This record gives sequence, structure tokens and C-alpha cells, in this order.
Amino acid sequence: MEQNLILINGEIMPLEEAKLDYLDRGHIFGDGVFEIVPVYNGRCFALVPHMENLFDYTIKTKIPGIYTVGELIEFHEALLEATGLTSCEIYTQISRGSAPYGLGFPTQSIPELIMFALPVDRKTAREKVTNGVNVITVEDERWASCDINTLNRMPEVMAKEKAIVGRAYDALFVRDGKITEGTEASFFVYKDGILWTHPDGKYIHRNITKRLLKERLSGGLDLQIMERPFTKDFALESDGAFLCGPRCEFVPVTKIDRSLVNEGKVNPVVDKIRDAFFDFVLTECPDKA
Amino acid sequence: MEQNLILINGEIMPLEEAKLDYLDRGHIFGDGVFEIVPVYNGRCFALVPHMENLFDYTIKTKIPGIYTVGELIEFHEALLEATGLTSCEIYTQISRGSAPYGLGFPTQSIPELIMFALPVDRKTAREKVTNGVNVITVEDERWASCDINTLNRMPEVMAKEKAIVGRAYDALFVRDGKITEGTEASFFVYKDGILWTHPDGKYIHRNITKRLLKERLSGGLDLQIMERPFTKDFALESDGAFLCGPRCEFVPVTKIDRSLVNEGKVNPVVDKIRDAFFDFVLTECPDKA
Repeated sequence: MEQNLILINGEIMPLEEAKLDYLDRGHIFGDGVFEIVPVYNGRCFALVPHMENLFDYTIKTKIPGIYTVGELIEFHEALLEATGLTSCEIYTQISRGSAPYGLGFPTQSIPELIMFALPVDRKTAREKVTNGVNVITVEDERWASCDINTLNRMPEVMAKEKAIVGRAYDALFVRDGKITEGTEASFFVYKDGILWTHPDGKYIHRNITKRLLKERLSGGLDLQIMERPFTKDFALESDGAFLCGPRCEFVPVTKIDRSLVNEGKVNPVVDKIRDAFFDFVLTECPDKA
Repeated sequence: MEQNLILINGEIMPLEEAKLDYLDRGHIFGDGVFEIVPVYNGRCFALVPHMENLFDYTIKTKIPGIYTVGELIEFHEALLEATGLTSCEIYTQISRGSAPYGLGFPTQSIPELIMFALPVDRKTAREKVTNGVNVITVEDERWASCDINTLNRMPEVMAKEKAIVGRAYDALFVRDGKITEGTEASFFVYKDGILWTHPDGKYIHRNITKRLLKERLSGGLDLQIMERPFTKDFALESDGAFLCGPRCEFVPVTKIDRSLVNEGKVNPVVDKIRDAFFDFVLTECPDKA
């Protein structure tokens, strides 16, 4: 099994042999879109909703669709089989393709699809965050189409780096005094029996894990979700906070900008949500053994 | 003379032979910066100020500096000699380099410098715009660091495409009801003997041509420049408007969203500024013959 593989326009090859055209518009303008699918027990989790999002990104950015959902599902399976990975993420990116330099869309360019698997040690990752993490806040200076996963990631790159330098787990974006989300995850607080999160919209990435919590998990846990913007002070005065997303799963947040949330303790409700999520994942992606 | 060349980390080679690593952060996150230098009569125009801007972009994005201004000047000259081009633009891009996937800065990655020349037929381009162009307005949804030329160009790509589809020359960004700039150029209006433009800042690209107009040309033309935000209505009621930048030079604007500016006529003052600019360029970049 070879893990350092890349799938390019349907063909799998060693990463080091694969080379991109320098004029690919993904490389010059960040002119492309992406999606990341988590893999548990060798099975893609929520693959179809993720691919539906990806298709919607291509429609919004007017990148011609060249593969069907069926083909994309096949490519995911082929990549899993070729790499032999059972716990990983599959990154999919579609750029507008290679063309002579110029901002406007090229008259002739073939979209370029690439996919690769990122191995993930979820056991270790989960253990690291069980007792909660600290996050920092940064001004949300992203563009107003955060609901499209484009390759324009500089604001997230700079925010994440600021978090790493400050020994924090992640950065929360704050726009007009309200917390929008993390660099790769949604942010929730729990207060007086209710879960609060920023409403969806142009400043919020689409997040399948958040959708899962809203549509599938919250009912069983008897949790009400309030989608309203809130401030950092509101979060600090809450009874618990967490980040959630397909990459990080559910991560309790116990400190924001060095101030404690819920006296630095993980609220049992957050643990309950995590457990419900882990159960759900196992139902959807059972062990193949 | 071979024109389809690319300079990569100092080495010149045919574009079709040059291939990029797929994991270059420029390709995955748009994690890089760029600058474009106009070339007249085989000479780079305002090369040092452009390179100073480029260095400042690398500092602001914390991309390690690996070349000196002296080396970058040499590379420009080498590329001009190899291509034999005398009327062109030289595009320079520095990405953070190739690294395993992850938002935070990689611990090990070597920035990747690429440069290529874009041939320009300025005579034809100038003739096309002499009688003025029409532009459209679009909502300015860019991020709040437009003063850094990063590879995050989606908003400009989408705006320029909208202009092209609408048979307009360019799109003007409008933020909070005020015109900020074009996709690759500054926007000015002339009213009651004064030139107006949006003040510099985080929503405005740095523009050497604008700086030239402010610092070198306006004095000789006895023109006062007012740097204040203004609305589309203000522009429509002005006595003339134009775009300016290193790529487009000076382009009279006679129509905004299908409404006429100055009854659709180019104000003679705009012609005077254009002529002063052409004279200045010839002084700085005289014919080598």
C-alpha cells in the first residue's frame, strides 16, 4: 500500500511524479474550490452531502462541472483502496484549470480535479482535546463569500498561524463584535440549557458536522439550538463552549484569549454531544472487521 | 528568441517543461504574493518601487525573503533578454512553497519564485480606450487586506468576469456605498477642477501609477488631488472619470452602469494627464534605438 498518492482527473499516481502546470488558475488566482471528507473505518462519512456542497461551490464560481457525484464517489473509493488508509480525510480540489494569464474566465480551460488522502490519528487527536482547548480571537477580515470553499485561504492561514504562535488550538473570527466561527470549524456555546451558534450565511463556512448536530443529534439529546450572533463576553459567561467540524470533530473550548469559560471545566453536555457524535459515526461507518 | 519562458527560482526554462508541485501552498491556499511590472522599450518601468511593494507583501504575509532587490532586478533583465520582448509586463509571484497540507505555516518550506513575461500591444490597447470605456459596479466583498497583493484573487476574478459578460471594460468595487477601485486599477473622477480618488488603506491595492500621478504628474499639471471616498452618483455628476494603473495606464471612463459621465465625452483634462504620463514613461524608458 502506497500512501503518498494523488488522484488527478481520475488517475491515481505517486505524488512526487505528479506535476502541475504553473499557469493553473488555482496557483495564480486561487481560482478553485475544495471539500474535505472524513473517513472512518475505511468508509467516507457523509460523502454525498459533502459532494453536493462541492458541486454548489463550482456552480457559484461558474467552474464547469466535469464529473458526476457517482464518479466522485468512485474516486473516493479508489483512493481509499490504493492508499489502504482507514482513518483519514480525503481532500478534493477543483480549479478552473490552466490558461494564459488574465483575471476573466478563459475561453478554453479544462477544470483540474485533484484528490489526496490525509492520514489522521483520531484517537490521539481526541485524547489531546478531551480536557478542553484554548483559542484566541482575531478580527474576521475574510471576504463576504465564506459559504463557498474557495482556494482563497489567506485569512485562515494567517489566523491559524497566529493561534499556533500563541500556543492556542485555533482562532475564532470576530466580525462586528460577534464571533462567527473558527478557521475550520463552527463555534457553539451552551448557556441556560440552549446551544448558541452564529446563523449560516455569507460569513460562515458550510459545515456538515454542524448540520448533523442541528438535524440529527440535537433532537435525541433534547437540546435546543439558537442561531443568533453573540459576543466574546457572552461566550465567556456561558456554561461551556466547543468547536465542531468534519476535521476536528467536537472539541471542548475552555479558554478564550486566556480567560476561562465555565471555570475552565468541560461541561458534561459537551461530552454528551461528543459521545452522541461518536456513536452516530460508528453507525454510519461501522468497522469492516 | 523564445517568448514562452518562465523563470523559476532564478532559472529560465520553457513554460511547458516547468512543472509545479501540486502541494505548493500557492496552489492549495493562494498562500503567496505577486507584483506586475510594465516594460516599455525593453526597460522596466518603476521597477524598484514595485519590488519594494513586493517585499512588503512578503513581510506582511511572513513569507521568508530569499532574494534581494538586486537579484530580482537581474531576473527581470534576464527574462527580458531571453524573451526578446520590449513591450510587455513581467509578472512575479512568490508562494510560501510546497508542504504537507495544513493551514498553519509549514516548519520547512522553501518559497517558490516564478516570473514570466506577458506581451502587450500598448498601441492597440491605447487606441481602443481613447474615446472612453464603460464600466459596471459590483459590491466590494473582498477581504480587508487589499493593500497586500496576495494570490487570493477570487473576488477580482468574479468581478472581472461579470464585467466581460456585460461587455464592460472593468468593474468598480463599491463598499458601503463608496467606490473603492477597479479590479486592477485605481479610479479617479475630475470635478470642479479637482481630482478625487478613494484614500489608500486596507481596501485599496497599492498602485504605482496612482502614486506617480500624486507625487510627480499632478504638480506639473497644476491639479489638486482630494483623497476622499465618493459615491457612484458623485462620479456620474463629475466632469470626467478614469481608471489608472500599471496594467491599463490611463483609461477614460465615460459610462458607469449604462449612465453617462460628462455626457459620454472624455474630459480634455483626462487626455492631458494621459499625455503627461506617456511623456513621463518615455523619459524613464527611452527607446534604445
